Amino acid sequence: MAKCKLEIRLAGSGGQGLMLAGIILAEAAILYDNRNAVNTQSYGPEARGGASQSEVIISDDEIDFPMCEQLDILLCLNQQSLDKYLDDLRKGGMLIVDSGLCADLPEGDEYKVYKIPFTALARDEVGKVFVANIVSLGAVAGLTDCVTRNSLERAVLTRVPKGTEPLNMKALAVGYREAAAARVDQPVGATKPA
Amino acid sequence: MAKCKLEIRLAGSGGQGLMLAGIILAEAAILYDNRNAVNTQSYGPEARGGASQSEVIISDDEIDFPMCEQLDILLCLNQQSLDKYLDDLRKGGMLIVDSGLCADLPEGDEYKVYKIPFTALARDEVGKVFVANIVSLGAVAGLTDCVTRNSLERAVLTRVPKGTEPLNMKALAVGYREAAAARVDQPVGATKPA
Repeated sequence: MAKCKLEIRLAGSGGQGLMLAGIILAEAAILYDNRNAVNTQSYGPEARGGASQSEVIISDDEIDFPMCEQLDILLCLNQQSLDKYLDDLRKGGMLIVDSGLCADLPEGDEYKVYKIPFTALARDEVGKVFVANIVSLGAVAGLTDCVTRNSLERAVLTRVPKGTEPLNMKALAVGYREAAAARVDQPVGATKPA
Repeated sequence: MAKCKLEIRLAGSGGQGLMLAGIILAEAAILYDNRNAVNTQSYGPEARGGASQSEVIISDDEIDFPMCEQLDILLCLNQQSLDKYLDDLRKGGMLIVDSGLCADLPEGDEYKVYKIPFTALARDEVGKVFVANIVSLGAVAGLTDCVTRNSLERAVLTRVPKGTEPLNMKALAVGYREAAAARVDQPVGATKPA
């Protein structure tokens, strides 16, 4: 059965918008799905580049300890963050990578690996590279059902700059589409619904 | 804002499995999403063929009147049911048709029309025509968020014949994929989350 607590890490280089993505995900869970969530962020010494990360824990129960202990879901938007954080992912956990930016992936079936070219999709289909974070958020939610789509849409709309709403809704929809397509070939049971 | 009551009609010919689809949808809402729902069914004089229909009302409030008054969502798996029931769909409502079986569609922008070849997908991609009802259920849920995916999966698994679970999960996933793809080009705001 579905686990009622989900530990998620969104990782990539600084400047890829994953801090904002973590805030949005947590707000979707807390404000609109009425669940418990915490969001913690950590930066490396580099302002941009490297491996920065944003953690989100979503639960129906109170969350005692606000740091991820063993990840259920790891999103990596660059190779450096994948190399750094893969060990924190539990066996059987879900690894979601930007397939255009991560070439060296784990072999075997220890993890459920989903490869989606987030940055290329953001650039080629939505027209703006900077919405790769929102495309990936749509994919994370679409693959895991960790928040409802309605809540995620509301949280995105509240947080993104005025004027960019249609762009970001399109980015989110592209992410959901990729996730839904991936689930046909590589089924994943829905996690706890929000 | 999202409406908290949703009136849905699943229509097609007898034998397309829409009675079961209605039961599954209502059970997903009631048993697993903990919302209120009613399911009513009506058959024409013909045991098979013609235009039969299954109605589902999903609401967060008590449902006083168990029949649809003005449809928010109309699914049609054949032309006959489309011709018969289109007038019951509210302006701005969502019309979802089997594009392989419905050729004569309403023109203009009175309705939001989504065309998906459910029967062809069931046959060609899942390998069994009889799961067209489950493909269409995935699309209805994916387009409207009327129930959570987790709940719908559970309801399907509970109701389908033993041994056909993987087939039906695949059918559902194909329906979700088609819906998610359609929402990129033709955005639709999520309805009330379950």
